[in-house]
Amino acid sequence: MILTVTPNPALDVTYTVPCFRPHTSHRVTGVATQAGGKGVNVARVLTALGRPARCVLPLGGPTGDAVRTELTAAGLDHAPVPIAGDTRRTVAVIDPTDATMLNEPGPVLDPAEWDALVAETRRHLPQAAVLVLSGSLPPGAPVDGYAQLVTLGRTFDIPVVLDADGPALLAALPARPTVIKPNASELTTATGLPDPHDAARTLLRRGAEAVLASLGADGLLAVDTHGAWRCAPPAAVTGNPTGAGDSTVAALAAGLSGNAGWSAILPDAVALSAATVLHPRAGHFDDAAYRRLRHSLTASRVGAVSPFAW
Amino acid sequence: MILTVTPNPALDVTYTVPCFRPHTSHRVTGVATQAGGKGVNVARVLTALGRPARCVLPLGGPTGDAVRTELTAAGLDHAPVPIAGDTRRTVAVIDPTDATMLNEPGPVLDPAEWDALVAETRRHLPQAAVLVLSGSLPPGAPVDGYAQLVTLGRTFDIPVVLDADGPALLAALPARPTVIKPNASELTTATGLPDPHDAARTLLRRGAEAVLASLGADGLLAVDTHGAWRCAPPAAVTGNPTGAGDSTVAALAAGLSGNAGWSAILPDAVALSAATVLHPRAGHFDDAAYRRLRHSLTASRVGAVSPFAW
Repeated sequence: MILTVTPNPALDVTYTVPCFRPHTSHRVTGVATQAGGKGVNVARVLTALGRPARCVLPLGGPTGDAVRTELTAAGLDHAPVPIAGDTRRTVAVIDPTDATMLNEPGPVLDPAEWDALVAETRRHLPQAAVLVLSGSLPPGAPVDGYAQLVTLGRTFDIPVVLDADGPALLAALPARPTVIKPNASELTTATGLPDPHDAARTLLRRGAEAVLASLGADGLLAVDTHGAWRCAPPAAVTGNPTGAGDSTVAALAAGLSGNAGWSAILPDAVALSAATVLHPRAGHFDDAAYRRLRHSLTASRVGAVSPFAW
Repeated sequence: MILTVTPNPALDVTYTVPCFRPHTSHRVTGVATQAGGKGVNVARVLTALGRPARCVLPLGGPTGDAVRTELTAAGLDHAPVPIAGDTRRTVAVIDPTDATMLNEPGPVLDPAEWDALVAETRRHLPQAAVLVLSGSLPPGAPVDGYAQLVTLGRTFDIPVVLDADGPALLAALPARPTVIKPNASELTTATGLPDPHDAARTLLRRGAEAVLASLGADGLLAVDTHGAWRCAPPAAVTGNPTGAGDSTVAALAAGLSGNAGWSAILPDAVALSAATVLHPRAGHFDDAAYRRLRHSLTASRVGAVSPFAW
C-alpha cells in the first residue's frame, strides 16, 4: 500500500462559465466538486491504476464533511484526522479560454492537531511500501513539519517522496527524503539557480537523495548521486495541467514500491502525467493515451557519470 | 413574527483578493461565509432590528449543513426542509475595484420536496404577521410555485410580499400578492416597458395589489390603486449594493406588520437600503447611518390621483 499524507487538503470546486469577465455576475452552468489536495490526487490516480493507496489527511467542519463524503463515494481509502477548523476550498473557474484559480489558505492546525496527523501517519506506516508527502503545509503547522514526517518514514525503512516547495521543502532536506519532486519554478525559488541540473545538485547537497524535476513540455529530469536521466513526451500536450505533477508522483511512488530504476520510472511518469493533462479534471487521466504513450517513451542518460561533478 | 420563505438559499462565500485577474492563480487573503439567499438576508436584517423573523428554506447536503450551522451561530430562527440535493453556493470575489459574482444554479427539488416546503410554510403561518417570498425558484420547482405560496398566505389573511422576477413573478400575479418588489431592470423585463410607472401599472392590472419598485440611486417608487409615492436618498450612496433590495423588503414587511402606509414605509425602506449599501456584507447595515437617514427623508406623492389613470 502507498500511503499519502496531505496536510492541507481541499474541497476542489470547478465552475464552468460561458465567458468569464471580472467585475460582472455569472450564472454557473457546470458545478463539479471533488476531494482535492496533492496527496489526494496521487491516491486517486494510484487507485485508478489498481494500486492500493490510502490517504491520511486532516478534515474539519462542513467542508471537511464534504471531502469525506466524496472520498467515500470515489472509493478512496482514507484515514481522516479530525480538526476544529473548516477544511479549505479551492475554486477553479473554467471558460473556453483558460482556468482562473482561487485558493483558500486553509484552517489553522493547532500543535495537538499536527501531532495527531503525525500519529495517524505512524499508525498506517507498518502497512506502507512508500510514503508520499504532498502539498503545502497548513497555517499553524511547524515549518519542519515535513522533516518530522520524512524522519518518521525513514525509520520504517521505506522510500519517502516529498512534493513541496519553499521553506517547507528546504526545512525537510536534512531529514533525507528519498526523492523530492520540484517543478522548474520551485527549483529556482529554492536555490536561486536558473539551470535545473545545477539547482537539482544543490538540493542533493542539502540532503535530498534524488531529485525528480518536472519541466513542463520538456518532461522530467531525474538527478541523483549516480547521474542524471531525461524523458520528454513526443510532442507538446495541451489540456488542463492541474494534477499533472501529482500523476508524476503517483508513477514515481508506484515505481519505487517495485524497486524500479529511472529507466522504467521516467517513461511511466511522463506518460501518466501527459495523460493527466489530456483529462479535464485533476486526479484523473486519459487511460488510452497513458497506455499508448508509456510504450513509446524511453529515458536517456544525460552527461558523464562523475561522483565529483556535483 | 415575519415569515420569510427562501426556495433557493445558498451558502454565500466571499473571497478577498489583492488584485483579481482572470486566467491566473490567486491566493485568497480573506474568506467569509454566511447563509444567504434573499429571504435569509431579509430575516437577518429584521432580526438585527429586533423584529421577530423566521426563515423557511430547503437545505440539503454538506453545503446545507454549513448554512444551518451559520444560521444557528447568527441567532436566526429557521425552519429547514430537508432535501436530497446539495444546497448551492455563491462565490463573490472582492478586489479593490469591484465584485465578481459566481452563482451556482441550485439543487433540483423533486415534487415531494416542493410540497414539503409549502407544508412547512403552512405550519408557521398561524404565527406570522406577514409572509415574505424571496428570490429565484430552484430547478424542479413548479413555475406557479410562488402562486401557490401567495394563495396560501392570503388564506391566512396576512400581507404577502413577493420579491421575484421573470416567469416566477408573472405566474404569481393572478394569486394577488399584496406587494411585489421589482427593480428597474426586472420591471422592464417583466413588461417590456421602459417607464417604471407604466410598468408598475401593468403589473397591477395583472394582479399585484401594489408595486414597490427599487430604482437604484433614484430610490423607491410605490404604486397602488390609490396613486404613486416616491422617496429618494439625499445623495448617491456608494458601497456594496448586494442585499440593498432585501433590506427594502425587510422595511416593507416591518411596516406592513404595523399597518403603516407608504409615507412611513418609504423613508424607512430607503434609509435601511442605503445603510445596507454602506455595509460591506449583504444582510447587514450601518446602524448609525440608518438611524440618521430615516429621520431626514420624506415620501412625496407623485402625479394626480385618478382611479382611471391606469
